[in-house]
Amino acid sequence: MDVRYVNPFIDSALNVLSTMAQTEAFSGTPKLKVDNVTWGEVTGLIGMAGDNVVGNLIISFDEPSILGIVSRMLGENFLSISDEIVDAVGEITNMISGGAKAKLATEGFQFNMATPVMVQGKHVKMSQLTTSPIISIPFETNEGKFVIEASIQRK
Amino acid sequence: MDVRYVNPFIDSALNVLSTMAQTEAFSGTPKLKVDNVTWGEVTGLIGMAGDNVVGNLIISFDEPSILGIVSRMLGENFLSISDEIVDAVGEITNMISGGAKAKLATEGFQFNMATPVMVQGKHVKMSQLTTSPIISIPFETNEGKFVIEASIQRK
Repeated sequence: MDVRYVNPFIDSALNVLSTMAQTEAFSGTPKLKVDNVTWGEVTGLIGMAGDNVVGNLIISFDEPSILGIVSRMLGENFLSISDEIVDAVGEITNMISGGAKAKLATEGFQFNMATPVMVQGKHVKMSQLTTSPIISIPFETNEGKFVIEASIQRK
Repeated sequence: MDVRYVNPFIDSALNVLSTMAQTEAFSGTPKLKVDNVTWGEVTGLIGMAGDNVVGNLIISFDEPSILGIVSRMLGENFLSISDEIVDAVGEITNMISGGAKAKLATEGFQFNMATPVMVQGKHVKMSQLTTSPIISIPFETNEGKFVIEASIQRK
């Protein structure tokens, strides 16, 4: 997976968190995902599918980061993972892939997005049926960390 | 969700298991999914996305059913859940949604499919960000049971 296809997801994540949740995030060095488990406590997943494109975007938050982000996003103080937090992860996943969609189209990746799915629990066994590498990008915020796992390929 | 949109998934599942795994399956009465957890030990999930369509297809197998199905599918005797079993669940998920795609197109649901995702573990917390009802269809085979959870809607 070319770095050109990773940057739109990074840019979109920084932009969504800044505008929707007044959260400044910093991205670290992308690396290959080598395990088959969820990284954080709440994980959002969205399928990306086009006539010639197939992939998934996965975003996984540790508990402190998502509590801070959703508290600011919804203007309410969340102290633990609730249905509202989980649904907000789905919304954030949808917004980040939506933000990356336009830029990826200019790279020849045209796709639509499926319904977001949210998985709770750290180290849940989750894998993808793909020969394409999955790129893992770490992010930091003032409160905690999250990870984006992106895989997109021509089919 | 109209029953007309459920039947193509049922027909495709029966057909895929019969032709790919020499497995006769029987479908029970569809009902609304009311919990937010995985049903079986291995669950396949695939996003469906079109210009006007959004959804997911989820298939969840108990351990005896998937061991029997994949043993026949690959011509090898599997006694426990392995990476090959998990990948085969992704393949089966892909084939069932692929089989339903043509028939759903005639109902006005045109979509492409994302990369299959497989989740291991029973009662893993997994939910979808949708207002559309999710239809759960139980199936029985000689060895065990599986469930299909389908949601597809116009957007």
